[in-house]
Amino acid sequence: MTRLLITGANGFIGRHATELAAARGLEVHALTREPKDPVDGVTYHTADLIAATDDACAIVRRVGATHLLHLAWYAVPKKFWHSPENYRWPGATMNLAAAFAQGGGRRMVAAGTCAEYDWSFGVCVEEATPLRPSTPYSVAKDATRRLLESWSQLNEISFAWGRVFFAYGPGEHADRVLAMTIRSLLLGRTAPCSNGRHARDFLDVRDVAAAFLALVESGVEGPVNIASGNPLPLATLLTRASEELGAPQLLSLGALPPPNEPPLLVADVHRLREKVGFTPRHDLDSGLRDAIAWHRAQLESSGELP
Amino acid sequence: MTRLLITGANGFIGRHATELAAARGLEVHALTREPKDPVDGVTYHTADLIAATDDACAIVRRVGATHLLHLAWYAVPKKFWHSPENYRWPGATMNLAAAFAQGGGRRMVAAGTCAEYDWSFGVCVEEATPLRPSTPYSVAKDATRRLLESWSQLNEISFAWGRVFFAYGPGEHADRVLAMTIRSLLLGRTAPCSNGRHARDFLDVRDVAAAFLALVESGVEGPVNIASGNPLPLATLLTRASEELGAPQLLSLGALPPPNEPPLLVADVHRLREKVGFTPRHDLDSGLRDAIAWHRAQLESSGELP
Repeated sequence: MTRLLITGANGFIGRHATELAAARGLEVHALTREPKDPVDGVTYHTADLIAATDDACAIVRRVGATHLLHLAWYAVPKKFWHSPENYRWPGATMNLAAAFAQGGGRRMVAAGTCAEYDWSFGVCVEEATPLRPSTPYSVAKDATRRLLESWSQLNEISFAWGRVFFAYGPGEHADRVLAMTIRSLLLGRTAPCSNGRHARDFLDVRDVAAAFLALVESGVEGPVNIASGNPLPLATLLTRASEELGAPQLLSLGALPPPNEPPLLVADVHRLREKVGFTPRHDLDSGLRDAIAWHRAQLESSGELP
Repeated sequence: MTRLLITGANGFIGRHATELAAARGLEVHALTREPKDPVDGVTYHTADLIAATDDACAIVRRVGATHLLHLAWYAVPKKFWHSPENYRWPGATMNLAAAFAQGGGRRMVAAGTCAEYDWSFGVCVEEATPLRPSTPYSVAKDATRRLLESWSQLNEISFAWGRVFFAYGPGEHADRVLAMTIRSLLLGRTAPCSNGRHARDFLDVRDVAAAFLALVESGVEGPVNIASGNPLPLATLLTRASEELGAPQLLSLGALPPPNEPPLLVADVHRLREKVGFTPRHDLDSGLRDAIAWHRAQLESSGELP
C-alpha cells in the first residue's frame, strides 16, 4: 500500500503530480503552505516548511507516508536563482526527511535541477557530466542532494533525485518566458524576445509530473534527468506558439539582447527511459495548445480577455 | 572594533579559542548550550542552535557581532562520524549565518574537517586535493562549506573555512585515543592500542584555537588547513606520552587490530603559514606534558587519583 506525501503540491509541477497521483488511486497527502483549490480525493495538510518547520514535521510524522515526493522550494520566477531563501531549504529538507523517516517512510524522491551540471558541457549525463552549480539556487540544490544521498544510506531509505530541465505547459507562472509570450499574443500585444537561438530541453509539465511519479514508483536510486532529451531552440518554441495563436507578426525575436547563457543544454534521458521506463505522452503541438488554452482561461477569468 | 561571537565555546577547541580571544582584549561573546565555568571578560549567551534555533538566532541578531567563529557541531567522540545529528547542522549553520548577517556581521570563520578530502591522496592541499567526504560527518561539513561559500558571496561577507586535522592537548575528551591512553597510564593500567603505524597531522589544541583566531583576524578567504604540516605516526605520539609518564611498559602497541584507515594524512600548511601568517607555539613535548597535567588534575578532582 502506497501512501504518498507530496510537498509543494500547489506548485507548477506539484499541482499536476497531485492530480495524476490521485487519478492513479494512490492514497495521496499534500503538504501546502495554504489551502487552495483542492484536488478531489487528496488529503491536504497546511504548514510552512520554512516558517513553521516543527509544525510541518509533526504533520509529516503523523501522516506516516511510505513515499515522499518533495517538490517544495522557493520558486518565484527569475528571483529564485539568486534569492537568499535558497539557503533555508537544505535545512528544511533535512528536517522533512528526518520526520518522514520517523514516520516509517521508505522511499523519497526530491526535485533537483539541470543547473547542478557544469553548463559548459551542453549535454548533461547523470553521474558523468561534471557538476558546477554556480548560483544560490543550484548550490543549495546540489548541497541538498549530497546531504540526502548520505542521509538515505544511513537510514536505509530508498532515494532518487529528479533533475528538472525546462518545464512548460498549463499552470505556468505568467512571469516565465513562454507564458509571458503567450499572454502578450493573446492580448494582441508585441512580445519582445531575445533571438532565442539557445537550445533547451523542454518537457510538458504534465510529463514532468508523470516522470516524477514513475520515478517514485520505480526502485531507481540516485540522480535521474527529468527531460525530453530533445534540444529545441527557444525561438522555435516561441514561433510555434505564435503560429498556434495565429499571431506570428507579434513575436519580435531579437528585440532583446541575447542572454548570457550557453548555446545548448540538453539531458541524456537513458536513465529515465530505460531504468525508470518512462515515455512522455505530450508532444510539443498539443502541449502548446493546452498551455494556450489554460492562459486564455486565466485571462478570461481575470477579465483581461472578454 | 572587533566584536567576536564564538559558537561551541565550551567545546575542545572553543574553550581555548574563547580564553585566547579574551586574553587578546577582544570583545568576546560566547554562545553555548549551557552555562559552564565561564572565562573572565566573556559575555555568555545560552541557547541551543539545534533545539531552539529561533532563540539562538534572536540572540545572534541582538549581539550584532562583526566577526563570527562558528565551532559548534555534534562532536561526541567516535559517534560523531556516523550520527544522524550531522544532518541537522547545515540548516542550523545557515540560520546562524543569516542571523549574523542581519546583525551586521562582516566576517565569518567556521570549522571544517580533513575528512572532506579524498584520503587516498595522503597529503591534503586546499583547492588542489580532490574532495571525497564519505561519512555523515564529512558530507555534512562539505555541504555546509558549499552553502556558506555561496551565501558569503551573495551577502558580501568575508568567509574562511578552517579544516581541522588532529587536535590533542588539555581538555581532550576521555574517549579519544590519546586521552584514553594517558588516563590508563596515569591509573597504572595497561593501554591496548593498534600498532599505530598510520601517520597523522597532530596539532596542540591551543595552537588550533590560536590558528582559528589568526584566521578570523586575517582577511584570508576560502579553505585553510588548520594543522602542523608534520606527519607523526600515532605510535610515536603514544610512545612519547608513555615515556613522559614513566610507564612505557603499560603501552601495548599492536594489542588491537590496525584501523581500516589510510597510512598517511597530513596537511599542506602553506596557506596557514604564509597567507594567515600563523606559526604554532607548542611543540610535542610541552603539549604532551600539559595534556598529562590536565588529565592528572581531572582524575584527582574526580577522586580516581589521590
